[in-house]
Amino acid sequence: MDTIEIGGTKRARRGYTFDEVAIAPSRRTRDPQGVSTSWNIDAYPFKLPFIAAPMDSIVSPQSAQVLSELGMLATLNVEGLWGRYEDPTALLAEIASMPVDRATQRLQEIYAAAPVNPDLVVQRIAELKNAGITVAVAVSPQATAVLAPVVAKAGADLVVIRGTTVSAEHVTAAGEPLNLKQFIYDLDAPVIVGGCATYQAALHLMRTGAAGVLVGFGGTSDSTSSDVLGVRVPMASAIADVAAARRDYLDESGGRYVHVIADGGLGRSGDIVKAFACGADAAMLGSVLARATDAPGNGAHWGAEAWHPHLPRGKRNTLEQSGTFAEVLHGPSVQADGTMNIAGALRKAMATTGYSDLKEFQRVEMVIG
Amino acid sequence: MDTIEIGGTKRARRGYTFDEVAIAPSRRTRDPQGVSTSWNIDAYPFKLPFIAAPMDSIVSPQSAQVLSELGMLATLNVEGLWGRYEDPTALLAEIASMPVDRATQRLQEIYAAAPVNPDLVVQRIAELKNAGITVAVAVSPQATAVLAPVVAKAGADLVVIRGTTVSAEHVTAAGEPLNLKQFIYDLDAPVIVGGCATYQAALHLMRTGAAGVLVGFGGTSDSTSSDVLGVRVPMASAIADVAAARRDYLDESGGRYVHVIADGGLGRSGDIVKAFACGADAAMLGSVLARATDAPGNGAHWGAEAWHPHLPRGKRNTLEQSGTFAEVLHGPSVQADGTMNIAGALRKAMATTGYSDLKEFQRVEMVIG
Amino acid sequence: MDTIEIGGTKRARRGYTFDEVAIAPSRRTRDPQGVSTSWNIDAYPFKLPFIAAPMDSIVSPQSAQVLSELGMLATLNVEGLWGRYEDPTALLAEIASMPVDRATQRLQEIYAAAPVNPDLVVQRIAELKNAGITVAVAVSPQATAVLAPVVAKAGADLVVIRGTTVSAEHVTAAGEPLNLKQFIYDLDAPVIVGGCATYQAALHLMRTGAAGVLVGFGGTSDSTSSDVLGVRVPMASAIADVAAARRDYLDESGGRYVHVIADGGLGRSGDIVKAFACGADAAMLGSVLARATDAPGNGAHWGAEAWHPHLPRGKRNTLEQSGTFAEVLHGPSVQADGTMNIAGALRKAMATTGYSDLKEFQRVEMVIG
Amino acid sequence: MDTIEIGGTKRARRGYTFDEVAIAPSRRTRDPQGVSTSWNIDAYPFKLPFIAAPMDSIVSPQSAQVLSELGMLATLNVEGLWGRYEDPTALLAEIASMPVDRATQRLQEIYAAAPVNPDLVVQRIAELKNAGITVAVAVSPQATAVLAPVVAKAGADLVVIRGTTVSAEHVTAAGEPLNLKQFIYDLDAPVIVGGCATYQAALHLMRTGAAGVLVGFGGTSDSTSSDVLGVRVPMASAIADVAAARRDYLDESGGRYVHVIADGGLGRSGDIVKAFACGADAAMLGSVLARATDAPGNGAHWGAEAWHPHLPRGKRNTLEQSGTFAEVLHGPSVQADGTMNIAGALRKAMATTGYSDLKEFQRVEMVIG
Repeated sequence: MDTIEIGGTKRARRGYTFDEVAIAPSRRTRDPQGVSTSWNIDAYPFKLPFIAAPMDSIVSPQSAQVLSELGMLATLNVEGLWGRYEDPTALLAEIASMPVDRATQRLQEIYAAAPVNPDLVVQRIAELKNAGITVAVAVSPQATAVLAPVVAKAGADLVVIRGTTVSAEHVTAAGEPLNLKQFIYDLDAPVIVGGCATYQAALHLMRTGAAGVLVGFGGTSDSTSSDVLGVRVPMASAIADVAAARRDYLDESGGRYVHVIADGGLGRSGDIVKAFACGADAAMLGSVLARATDAPGNGAHWGAEAWHPHLPRGKRNTLEQSGTFAEVLHGPSVQADGTMNIAGALRKAMATTGYSDLKEFQRVEMVIG
Repeated sequence: MDTIEIGGTKRARRGYTFDEVAIAPSRRTRDPQGVSTSWNIDAYPFKLPFIAAPMDSIVSPQSAQVLSELGMLATLNVEGLWGRYEDPTALLAEIASMPVDRATQRLQEIYAAAPVNPDLVVQRIAELKNAGITVAVAVSPQATAVLAPVVAKAGADLVVIRGTTVSAEHVTAAGEPLNLKQFIYDLDAPVIVGGCATYQAALHLMRTGAAGVLVGFGGTSDSTSSDVLGVRVPMASAIADVAAARRDYLDESGGRYVHVIADGGLGRSGDIVKAFACGADAAMLGSVLARATDAPGNGAHWGAEAWHPHLPRGKRNTLEQSGTFAEVLHGPSVQADGTMNIAGALRKAMATTGYSDLKEFQRVEMVIG
Repeated sequence: MDTIEIGGTKRARRGYTFDEVAIAPSRRTRDPQGVSTSWNIDAYPFKLPFIAAPMDSIVSPQSAQVLSELGMLATLNVEGLWGRYEDPTALLAEIASMPVDRATQRLQEIYAAAPVNPDLVVQRIAELKNAGITVAVAVSPQATAVLAPVVAKAGADLVVIRGTTVSAEHVTAAGEPLNLKQFIYDLDAPVIVGGCATYQAALHLMRTGAAGVLVGFGGTSDSTSSDVLGVRVPMASAIADVAAARRDYLDESGGRYVHVIADGGLGRSGDIVKAFACGADAAMLGSVLARATDAPGNGAHWGAEAWHPHLPRGKRNTLEQSGTFAEVLHGPSVQADGTMNIAGALRKAMATTGYSDLKEFQRVEMVIG
Repeated sequence: MDTIEIGGTKRARRGYTFDEVAIAPSRRTRDPQGVSTSWNIDAYPFKLPFIAAPMDSIVSPQSAQVLSELGMLATLNVEGLWGRYEDPTALLAEIASMPVDRATQRLQEIYAAAPVNPDLVVQRIAELKNAGITVAVAVSPQATAVLAPVVAKAGADLVVIRGTTVSAEHVTAAGEPLNLKQFIYDLDAPVIVGGCATYQAALHLMRTGAAGVLVGFGGTSDSTSSDVLGVRVPMASAIADVAAARRDYLDESGGRYVHVIADGGLGRSGDIVKAFACGADAAMLGSVLARATDAPGNGAHWGAEAWHPHLPRGKRNTLEQSGTFAEVLHGPSVQADGTMNIAGALRKAMATTGYSDLKEFQRVEMVIG
């Protein structure tokens, strides 16, 4: 990014959003059938480079199984409704139907009414393991010290530590801060951690031993971090910066390849394509999956920021439902707006620019404007 | 285009859309009557530098004749309804009237229900030839190997190979890829080929022996390639880049002038003017012609991407009808919005900036902002 | 303006609109009462640096008198309704009330039905002279050779030659082109001529002996030149460029100061302020005056482009009426949107930035963004 | 700011608004509980770095007490309704309910009907002093010479001289201009003065001996200075420029730290965060406080520009009410849009970027785009 003077001595880098960039087909094309979208992290291979975001509107024990069978990884938020309630089905229905002006307050009530139950967390992981799928669960940075060992011991294959911002050097006055490096070293499961948005922040997270870092702070349709906190991530630039950290850390570590996972702003297949073009290895998906008719959110979509008791920074949105998870991922599409057949769209984009795998596609030519 | 850092090591070129640029009158003016808009490609001269896009909403065997008599070239898509149905009149009416939420799916059904019929293709070309007009037909890159020889043998004067992206080096796992250079050399008709959007892609297409290249990927009002594939073409910059390839190839080939044909984003006469200002030799027109009261689309407009069976990337749009083809092209205009008398508008733009022919007009001064 | 590459070898200058710039108050302020907005051109002094545009919606023989009494110059278009009809009052009422979808066509009919009548033109000038005001009349470039001597002989104090673009070097196949320099030399009245938008065009117009040049091509609320012709003028940059031509011509001519008159995009008092800040000596006003309750347009507003028989490039707009000409110019204002008390706003803007006359105010600090 | 050529020899600086910038979390995070938002000016310490703007919709003698108890400074405009009317309660209710098209004119009437009453001003200050709070009152630059000594003598702890633009070198033809430096020296209370928007203007105000300068010209939701006067302040750049003046004046004066107070464009907590990130020491708040259910404006909001008798430059707006002053400042929030718990949002933003006090937070990394 170029550095620009805001005024006085204050300088800032110029970042670009997905909307501002595009990929540019050039001299070579290819058949979509000859394109691979396969991805693997640690010992786990996937046909699709997508991860379902740990949001109650997307991932339940049931939908995790459906999504896994369709070729991708799903992440259950163990601090969500399934970690608090034995059967949250009725609450999910209520959330989808509540009037917009009452939604934030009612979300706060629902999540505050039942604390996270470690026994329930262990039980959820057992349900997922019984289904025979790769089990990924998410915890917040605040609860990591307590919950991450629980979920690792319960047999989670991957642990995702996901918050608005997660840093390698958290400062706290209340007791000892979490030493993320030691913690990851001690944990019995590979860790994906984030969000982050800069080269420096990503490099420090990579040095903790994480298998993957999340770029961005989640959410677009559902997040209001910009209005509330003044935080905004120009996703195209952030991914490209973190990809540069991946390359430098690969050299520094003598060969550890830390996966760069785009997390936020991926509402259309075109955005997902651009994330890979900027250097992502995988994409954590939110609203595009919440549109599925078999998503647990019943057409509603919200993240963990939306139920914060004192400072909510997201909304319960209602999305137009487009088709089943299977149709959203693999088509056929009957919507020409980037919300269906996203795997097919990614393959077509790779084919139309002549690339046959995702790693190569990170070199695709791009245009601004 | 200037090269800008997106982030890390990822760079992109800054491209400009028609909306961002304008022509700037300067020290000389001229009478519109003293201005020529004539254009010729291969042995075919035209009074107007416009080509009707191969879309069922614009070109039928009948409308091709009307448009030819008005001074321009029309391209029939032989893979469209007229190559699939003996008489698609009722289907055209149905498409124009179907509700918006069902449109994509019904388009998919209509085009899937009847495969392209080579006999019908031959018959359509005979109808056009009987009308005594210059016959141009379009085929998709996928069908080129099979259909292009058929249409050339049937007597087509010009063959247009048009797809989202067409490259000189297509890679396929299914059998031998089409060697475009050999193919064009063997074919008995001059070929126009595209879309492309970069200097490199255009240069390679020019080297295949094409008589003209299409710049852009078609469509604006009707295309959603940006949402679905992440592909977007800043048309003003793309045309200027391809015009540079034309100049370099002219030198490299010792005198072959390959025509640069703008294809996409030309919804108003002002956009068409800017395309020539950026270096185009001709303009392939879509929505502006679909607005004609005698267009076969009956006020509806859609392209080949809209009926793709798995990944549609365009919509069936409904446009306000403005006047007959004759009025759209030659006026008089009763709409002050750039949708009527587009030939008059082009002449007026050339006159007001002091140029007398299209080749000179490519040098007109422009402004950004 | 900075020069930017659009693509290939095509370059363009980056221009700025009024919306993109603003004036920046700095270390000195002043009482509005101590500020002068006086302006004079040739032998004619005015309290206000405003010229009413030659549009039938603004200037009639009656309103010209009202505007003059309020301190400004008004320009009658002798090719408008008052040069065609003995009493166009009923037509003005009809134009104001006709439905929007019929407006363009009906305007074309009304102006085509009666040709310009030279006797009527002479009579209108007599009416204006009898009122004892400075008489300015406008003619189109096409009619200049015929009408300008008529109006000069009839006693017009100032002749305005105003068209979309007026150049010093017009090329015509139909007979001898107008030699503007000789023509102005021979004419018995000072001439204001335009529009133009570049340094070069302005410099050439200045060399014809004009007393003032119009910058811009008129209209904003009413013009669609951008949609139809691809012509657009970033007004802030155009004025600054033409002001540079004024300075260079002043030197080249050994002291002739040619007035730079902003003409277009001046819909709010804030825009007018910015025009002076960019270097204008006076401002030709359109829509802001058409809002007056005593304007002849009765709340409607249109320019000469709107009634072009073949290629109309403007619309009949309806504006919210804000107050009388006196209130629009001198207040008091009861609208906080820049449509009333525009002289007061200009004085306040000059005072708040510490300047006491218009020539000094051209040096005011500005900001982009 | 970078300097850019508008055209000719006219140059302008490129400024950035809050919308164009954001803060960028990096490698360190912190607990919100470990963050301090305390601020002090002169001898007066506050838990929150917020100042209620001197607007009748926000500050009454009663609400000043509420806001003070919540930890911030409130400024009473002694030229507002409380300085003109014994009990303006009914007028406040009328203003909130009057129809939008009559609002400006009725405001003009209400404020014109009763002149500022010095006795009432003294009485208001007594009321505030009796409440035991830090007493800040605002006067306009025009009334400063007369009113400022009155309020200082009456015991105001802080005097705010606030106008659209206030300069250290005001020129007037009507008698001697106010010598701001001498005036402040003579006054028995520290002075906050503004608005200003440039380095030079701020530096000169600092040299008058002011304890703080206001950056910006107030208002966003309520101001139309851009439309009317052509004046616009890109707030992010202006604050950064004035912060540079603070640093240079600190050196020049051998240690006087003049507080930089952002005043304008602070409608969401995210904007407030950005103001501090750009270098502000405190933020003067308008609309965000007017949203409080216990604000005197009853949901309506307007500034002093809105009742100007000849040239109003602001509107009476109606805002959605979000909660009590206590909830707006300290939460809990039930709105995810930056209008509630603004102190919590500021603390969270500081924590998420790893800073523990406001002075340090001025160094936070920012991004443009």
